[in-house]
Amino acid sequence: MNYCSQCGQPVVFKIPPDDKLPRFVCESCGTIHYQNPRMVVGSVTEWTGKVLLCRRAIEPRRGYWTLPAGFMENEETLEACAQREAREEALADIEVGSLLTVINVPHASQVHLFYRARLVGGGFGVGHESLDAALYTQAEVPWDDLAFPSVEFTLQRYFADRAEGREDAHVTTVERLWRGSR
Amino acid sequence: MNYCSQCGQPVVFKIPPDDKLPRFVCESCGTIHYQNPRMVVGSVTEWTGKVLLCRRAIEPRRGYWTLPAGFMENEETLEACAQREAREEALADIEVGSLLTVINVPHASQVHLFYRARLVGGGFGVGHESLDAALYTQAEVPWDDLAFPSVEFTLQRYFADRAEGREDAHVTTVERLWRGSR
Repeated sequence: MNYCSQCGQPVVFKIPPDDKLPRFVCESCGTIHYQNPRMVVGSVTEWTGKVLLCRRAIEPRRGYWTLPAGFMENEETLEACAQREAREEALADIEVGSLLTVINVPHASQVHLFYRARLVGGGFGVGHESLDAALYTQAEVPWDDLAFPSVEFTLQRYFADRAEGREDAHVTTVERLWRGSR
Repeated sequence: MNYCSQCGQPVVFKIPPDDKLPRFVCESCGTIHYQNPRMVVGSVTEWTGKVLLCRRAIEPRRGYWTLPAGFMENEETLEACAQREAREEALADIEVGSLLTVINVPHASQVHLFYRARLVGGGFGVGHESLDAALYTQAEVPWDDLAFPSVEFTLQRYFADRAEGREDAHVTTVERLWRGSR
């Protein structure tokens, strides 16, 4: 951030009065520009015992497999976001169920949230941000070619809970955004 | 938003190519300024069976009671945010436990998340954003003077789960940010 989005004057990076962290502050109009973490929301969508995965057509992690998920929009609910992302990335109509995982990704200033979901009607396809989309059994999941640690954690918890007939919400923190980028 | 925070030129509000929603777009440098929902994170902190509430010293809802909570910062985890807010608003040192509630507040473009927590040592006080802080039994909670519907929902679920010896995560959507502002 270089300029104030309110008045167009240059901003400075400093700790405002009564604050503890440095912010981008406009000394011309007084606006303090707070920056906050973003939510990435998605689903584990099941159909006939298989789960819906997409192969990413965009960076980061192009070519790797992921769950349909993306940045939450203003005025949206978590469930509506999961539904929209399934439609955009896998042309899938889903019925959103229970909350499955909540994952801190502090170094990327993100929180990832995944829901259990059911594919309505069984149809799906390849959205414009995907190279491929497919239904996989637990054994068929390309575990070594998953895009993100949050996706790996979510799929693990999903199958473990399903085996035990549970629907818990699991919270964790991952140290890296990208799987493999050590 | 009036000006591009990158280059300082005026922005326009339009749907970018390959997008579906209007964004603030800089036609000078090409930056698309996405705006996303923010997370408010807090805790139900217990000590000797009572829960810690704060009376708000700031708008909105000045004078009404709330749980210690606030906007999550970049590079922070949810748990660290809950801990920091308890320290700032109630001078309380807390041990964060399980996830209690996840609440969509779509009309405010917020998601509120609350954790169960334990007050370490029993000490607390009145932070600079609070007029008062106090420990209340379930019966003593000022139910009619709570600041936000998300706080009311969270306290209800907390006491209901405690009565049943459960620690579930509850997800809901509230239509209003402020309690009483119909």
